[in-house]
Amino acid sequence: MRDDDKYTNTEEHLLYLQKLLDTPDTAALQDFFTELDTLHIARTLESFPAKTRDFLWEFIPEDLIGEVLAEVDEDIRADYIEGLSASDIEKIVKGLDAQEVAEVLDVADEEIKTSVYASLDQDIRAHVENLHAYEEDVVGRYMDPETVNVKQGVSLEAVQRYIRIHHLLDDESQQIMITDKDKRLLGTLTLIDLIKQPQDAVVDDYMDDFFTLNDQMKVSDAASLLRSKELPFVPVCDSDGLLVGQLNSADVLEITQEDADMTLKHMSGVSNEEEVFTPITRSAKSRGIWLGINLLTAFLAAFVIGQFEAALDQIVALAILMPVVASMGGIAGSQTLTVVIRGLALGQLAGNNIKWLYNKEMWVGMSNGLVWALVVGLISHIWFGDAMITLVITLAIFINMSLANLSGVLIPMVLKKLQIDPALSGAVILTTVTDVVGFLSFLGLATLIIL
Amino acid sequence: MRDDDKYTNTEEHLLYLQKLLDTPDTAALQDFFTELDTLHIARTLESFPAKTRDFLWEFIPEDLIGEVLAEVDEDIRADYIEGLSASDIEKIVKGLDAQEVAEVLDVADEEIKTSVYASLDQDIRAHVENLHAYEEDVVGRYMDPETVNVKQGVSLEAVQRYIRIHHLLDDESQQIMITDKDKRLLGTLTLIDLIKQPQDAVVDDYMDDFFTLNDQMKVSDAASLLRSKELPFVPVCDSDGLLVGQLNSADVLEITQEDADMTLKHMSGVSNEEEVFTPITRSAKSRGIWLGINLLTAFLAAFVIGQFEAALDQIVALAILMPVVASMGGIAGSQTLTVVIRGLALGQLAGNNIKWLYNKEMWVGMSNGLVWALVVGLISHIWFGDAMITLVITLAIFINMSLANLSGVLIPMVLKKLQIDPALSGAVILTTVTDVVGFLSFLGLATLIIL
Repeated sequence: MRDDDKYTNTEEHLLYLQKLLDTPDTAALQDFFTELDTLHIARTLESFPAKTRDFLWEFIPEDLIGEVLAEVDEDIRADYIEGLSASDIEKIVKGLDAQEVAEVLDVADEEIKTSVYASLDQDIRAHVENLHAYEEDVVGRYMDPETVNVKQGVSLEAVQRYIRIHHLLDDESQQIMITDKDKRLLGTLTLIDLIKQPQDAVVDDYMDDFFTLNDQMKVSDAASLLRSKELPFVPVCDSDGLLVGQLNSADVLEITQEDADMTLKHMSGVSNEEEVFTPITRSAKSRGIWLGINLLTAFLAAFVIGQFEAALDQIVALAILMPVVASMGGIAGSQTLTVVIRGLALGQLAGNNIKWLYNKEMWVGMSNGLVWALVVGLISHIWFGDAMITLVITLAIFINMSLANLSGVLIPMVLKKLQIDPALSGAVILTTVTDVVGFLSFLGLATLIIL
Repeated sequence: MRDDDKYTNTEEHLLYLQKLLDTPDTAALQDFFTELDTLHIARTLESFPAKTRDFLWEFIPEDLIGEVLAEVDEDIRADYIEGLSASDIEKIVKGLDAQEVAEVLDVADEEIKTSVYASLDQDIRAHVENLHAYEEDVVGRYMDPETVNVKQGVSLEAVQRYIRIHHLLDDESQQIMITDKDKRLLGTLTLIDLIKQPQDAVVDDYMDDFFTLNDQMKVSDAASLLRSKELPFVPVCDSDGLLVGQLNSADVLEITQEDADMTLKHMSGVSNEEEVFTPITRSAKSRGIWLGINLLTAFLAAFVIGQFEAALDQIVALAILMPVVASMGGIAGSQTLTVVIRGLALGQLAGNNIKWLYNKEMWVGMSNGLVWALVVGLISHIWFGDAMITLVITLAIFINMSLANLSGVLIPMVLKKLQIDPALSGAVILTTVTDVVGFLSFLGLATLIIL
């Protein structure tokens, strides 16, 4: 049993490890990692920059290295595997399950893969090759191919005995699959029912309705489905309806959390792979793409402003107030965008609902637009005391905020139709629209009304 | 068993329901909801605006209404409960488990609560009152208080018999708790081990290490812990170390997903409760707060620009290029902010690591800053052909992007120290900083160098 105080707070835990590293106290480091489980070791390694991490690997118990590798971020795994020989890797993957072996070999080059394949037990090898046959972003890659299957008409007691005799049910199994002779799934039986129901009953009596995922489904689509259904466990079938694996609760947690992370990262222009401890050069490069795209849109906005040189030249107040118009539109639009992206992810937007949503956002945009246009107008009037400027900025804020909310619905909808992830480019496109509309309406109205 | 085609695609499902509503085909609507499970009904209700939803409630099988209520968003629950009498609610909560009753009663007023309490079975009532004694944002509120507890020294076979005789293990139990006579947790036994291990062995032989959460822990802190540990199940203890409940995989999924959603919403200035179908007035009001805060910061930026009237008055190119400086800094800063907020949520940032992170972000900021400063300088030079303007904007972009990355670390760190959720106000503060620094450096340098 664990000493709770030492483990509940992840940060204290980190500080303790840093203290050991400072000396460094190699004996204590060894002890430290011996006490931890695989997951904990993986999370710990992810909490250090590359240099320290390379040093820490030395203290990880040898028999855990394989499992830890399967668990850490892909970048870290690739760094470790690089430079290892095929025979090193053969030793590492010995004793791992198919899912773990597939993870580790994922980052190895083809030559090493083939050589390690040859060293695997027959049935694990078949599973691993199967997993590797899937594209990287489909459900088949994430599933556990080892399921416990029984036939119809068997008693619960017999199922329990069968499991004990054959040492089935690994840590990750959560339901028993009832299949026909072709491995077509007929139903599932929960472990709970297997235990609590009369043992002489047959599995057929307690077969549950089941929902399956197709092995070729994109993981991001699967994530939305799993979120909306709140299923902690799903059988996976191929397109012929044959059972090929299962997603257990850990897989589901992983998929849905990765998806939520991705949305967050994409909305701020950060790439999927970047973590806190991604090395400087990799971070700089991966962020550069979004900075470049943003630059294009920023110059587009500058170009719009440039069309109104005459107005800016005459009235300096326009230059001063200009960012207020763009900024209010930007916030209003991104509020809408976030809510819509969530609705799309949950599959809540289809048919009439979309019309309702446009209508809602039009009213929210116009009413908030009106309120804040009057507030901004008032402040500007107090500041500059110029009725024409007050009129222009009031109108511009109202126009920009109203259109911002509609764009917040329109942009993700169009992106989805084009099969582009709305979180990925939605925010950039939206800001471009609110900047351009903001500057255009403000400076355009000023040119029309004042000049 | 279900007809898969009808259910795999949530959107098609919605469209089908909308077709039924158009007529409206009341018989088919009745059938539609009879076929669905509770969760599915709840998600369906959440996918319609309030007016349609009120109509849909009529078609939900009466015996499911309680469970559906416990499952839907709090807003929707409150709308439904409002106007119901105590005896209506007593009927609705009949047959629900303690967690569900607590959810439903949460939104009822005190008088109704007391009256419904009196109608509950003794042991459910005790659990419900217990749950209600917790604050809304602590783990105790989310837990399932009904656990299956056994004593040390009992054989697995006896545990299985005990479960069957007493009809224990509801859908949500996932492990057996081994406790002493004071209900102090000694270990846990997975259902997997209960089935697969020799039935004459005693529970002590297969007791797992366990990690527990304190019932008074804030749910948001628990979410970080659960994410970093990837635990699909956790026992909950009070501060005396006594077992008071469990979080099962559905609870864990709920907590971690709510937390991820909250981060996403907070970063874009949307309140926790807002969903796609939140009514217009509620949405407008809840978004208003962030628009107001943004307005203050936008005027702060405008005020900074106002200090440089003289420069703007003489060189109109400054007004044109000004937003480019602010925008590049804004993106660079929010990229860093997102990565740091994730690191904080995972508990990866403590001690030396923070120093490493400042160092990393300084270099990323300066190197990306340098590259993009040169690009912007070049474009500006081609556009305006003025060496002084080129010099000023190149320097300003470099300064703003370098400081933006450092602010992206500093701001969430300081907010965390002040116990403010960094996702909630981080983005607004960051944009304020990048706007102010951007305008100040660009217009300030222009005043110094050109005028």
